[in-house]
Amino acid sequence: MSLFRDNIEKMKGYVPGEQPQEGDYVKLNTNENPFPPSPKVLAAVKAAAGSSLRLYPDPMATRVREKVAEVLGTRPERVLVGNGSDELLGVIVRAFAGSGEKVVFPYPTYLLYKTLVDVQEAEVVEVDFDEGFSLPEDIIVKGARITFLCNPNSPSGTMVWPDEAARLARQIDGVLAIDEAYVDFADANCLSLVEDNPNVIILRTLSKSYSLAGLRLGFCIAQEGLIEGLIKVKDSYNVDRLSMAAAVAALDDQKHLRENVDRIKGIRGYLSESLREMGFFVYPSQANFVFARCKDAATAGEIYEQLKRQRILVRHINYRGLEDCVRISVGTREEIDTMLGALSEVLCETGKSAGK
Amino acid sequence: MSLFRDNIEKMKGYVPGEQPQEGDYVKLNTNENPFPPSPKVLAAVKAAAGSSLRLYPDPMATRVREKVAEVLGTRPERVLVGNGSDELLGVIVRAFAGSGEKVVFPYPTYLLYKTLVDVQEAEVVEVDFDEGFSLPEDIIVKGARITFLCNPNSPSGTMVWPDEAARLARQIDGVLAIDEAYVDFADANCLSLVEDNPNVIILRTLSKSYSLAGLRLGFCIAQEGLIEGLIKVKDSYNVDRLSMAAAVAALDDQKHLRENVDRIKGIRGYLSESLREMGFFVYPSQANFVFARCKDAATAGEIYEQLKRQRILVRHINYRGLEDCVRISVGTREEIDTMLGALSEVLCETGKSAGK
Repeated sequence: MSLFRDNIEKMKGYVPGEQPQEGDYVKLNTNENPFPPSPKVLAAVKAAAGSSLRLYPDPMATRVREKVAEVLGTRPERVLVGNGSDELLGVIVRAFAGSGEKVVFPYPTYLLYKTLVDVQEAEVVEVDFDEGFSLPEDIIVKGARITFLCNPNSPSGTMVWPDEAARLARQIDGVLAIDEAYVDFADANCLSLVEDNPNVIILRTLSKSYSLAGLRLGFCIAQEGLIEGLIKVKDSYNVDRLSMAAAVAALDDQKHLRENVDRIKGIRGYLSESLREMGFFVYPSQANFVFARCKDAATAGEIYEQLKRQRILVRHINYRGLEDCVRISVGTREEIDTMLGALSEVLCETGKSAGK
Repeated sequence: MSLFRDNIEKMKGYVPGEQPQEGDYVKLNTNENPFPPSPKVLAAVKAAAGSSLRLYPDPMATRVREKVAEVLGTRPERVLVGNGSDELLGVIVRAFAGSGEKVVFPYPTYLLYKTLVDVQEAEVVEVDFDEGFSLPEDIIVKGARITFLCNPNSPSGTMVWPDEAARLARQIDGVLAIDEAYVDFADANCLSLVEDNPNVIILRTLSKSYSLAGLRLGFCIAQEGLIEGLIKVKDSYNVDRLSMAAAVAALDDQKHLRENVDRIKGIRGYLSESLREMGFFVYPSQANFVFARCKDAATAGEIYEQLKRQRILVRHINYRGLEDCVRISVGTREEIDTMLGALSEVLCETGKSAGK
């Protein structure tokens, strides 16, 4: 008999995107930001790299909470900081969903939700998105303890607008966890829902818009009652001193954030248009990546393989019904031009067009 | 009805030791190392604080695994790295103990085990240590999925020797997780048990002997089959780039470690002897703290309070049956002399002696 629980024995782990640690890749596969973080972040890390590392960090990351509250116009007591928003997603599952209880999310979305629910031995309820990635009626599942909404969604890059999310929050029984990892690239966000909805949790991260995926710093915002319960479930010392120092500096430099986001949105427009001109159907993106549909699954697979051979990484996730799609992160203008050049060669060589 | 699971609603969270973020304390309450980390660690952090922070870290922390394997004489595939060993303790609970299943540990020990088992809604089985903190026979519980052994133990500082731990590993049904957070200060360790026991997991941390509590870096060592299962349960990107760089540098500087540990052991001897001379009963310590028994609970409480008023923090944990004990971390020789001076005043002023 295995020492592991049956559900762990049976499950497949979450498979992160390729993260080559060596070599020079044009890396457009895991939605990292192509621009460096604020210089103030690097200075803050260097200043924090002293003998105080021998001491435990502040368990509540108070300075980060305060800075988040200041930047987002909320109260520190409504903020909880985590080792990446991934950690907080796990904390949320453990806090609200017991063994066998329902956790709902649309399909396709961020694959980690399913992994976390499987680990918890709770019940995964996946509800297919409607055409164009709008929310289906049956996303409202009676007795569900948690409903996850990645918004903007990955891999589609599409957005459920705040009024619709607010309606969902009022209609469901349990918690609505809105994962806003990509929201700084979008035209709206759901933060204001926290005020009127005691069941809403908003998740944010410094990984994308703040160019700090390597740091692992996320946070969530919810009413005080929810935050207090989540504190019981998180690891006490979940965020280290260097990450805290970096996070405070990053959040403090809103000018850097705005300029970074503006550049990404500009290149996103260029990338989307270029792909459309090549015959792809491109979903309107509110994130730092685009989701593009080509003729068929074989073409999508070939695009991935051929680009990889030229050390350009994009994502071909093979979601059911979306096997003909590739997800491409917004890189620098130079990286995108390199990718587009290689892509047009792939399509030309194989005598294929991108379009249907 | 609460949105939280019943077990979360009912439980009290883990309460970490006081971590004052401001002010100048003689901090002898959470077993931090009084000496700074290796200068090579600080240099490595500064070197890593660059634009590569925009990229996700290596999900498997390969360079840390390799360095651990090299230093401890094992294989990288037998090592798993976590955001502090606390994270790995949580991963172990989720991997092996389902709802209602038994998790065993002696009492008193590291309080976090109980919190993690409560979050999991598994069954806590606490078995009192024998006199002198040796293992009782009834630590062997039929059907237990996990047995935790903090070794050296906190708060007692005492040690279960490897041959006894090996016997326990063979006699129990489930996993034996040996938490060796303090083991670099001890005269033995249980690492060799991994070779012959497919159910043993050894946990280590850089928080104590490497002076890096502020960093959050722990790891565990077990046979490949266990490590592969645990990988499914951990967060993908659980360790950040700065911590990895620091960890590799710390592990690489074994000379710094040895010198640091030797100094701590020297001061530990001095602290133990001084307390005995003042009338305390002091358990023989294999860790970087000492556990000292005085006349009664009131005296122990007063020691804690009076020292705190002088900005000296020690721990009065109030364990059942050990309310008359205080736990004092080994500080610098100067810190210990300051504490001893204040302590003798407390005992003198109150007209009390420490002894029974």
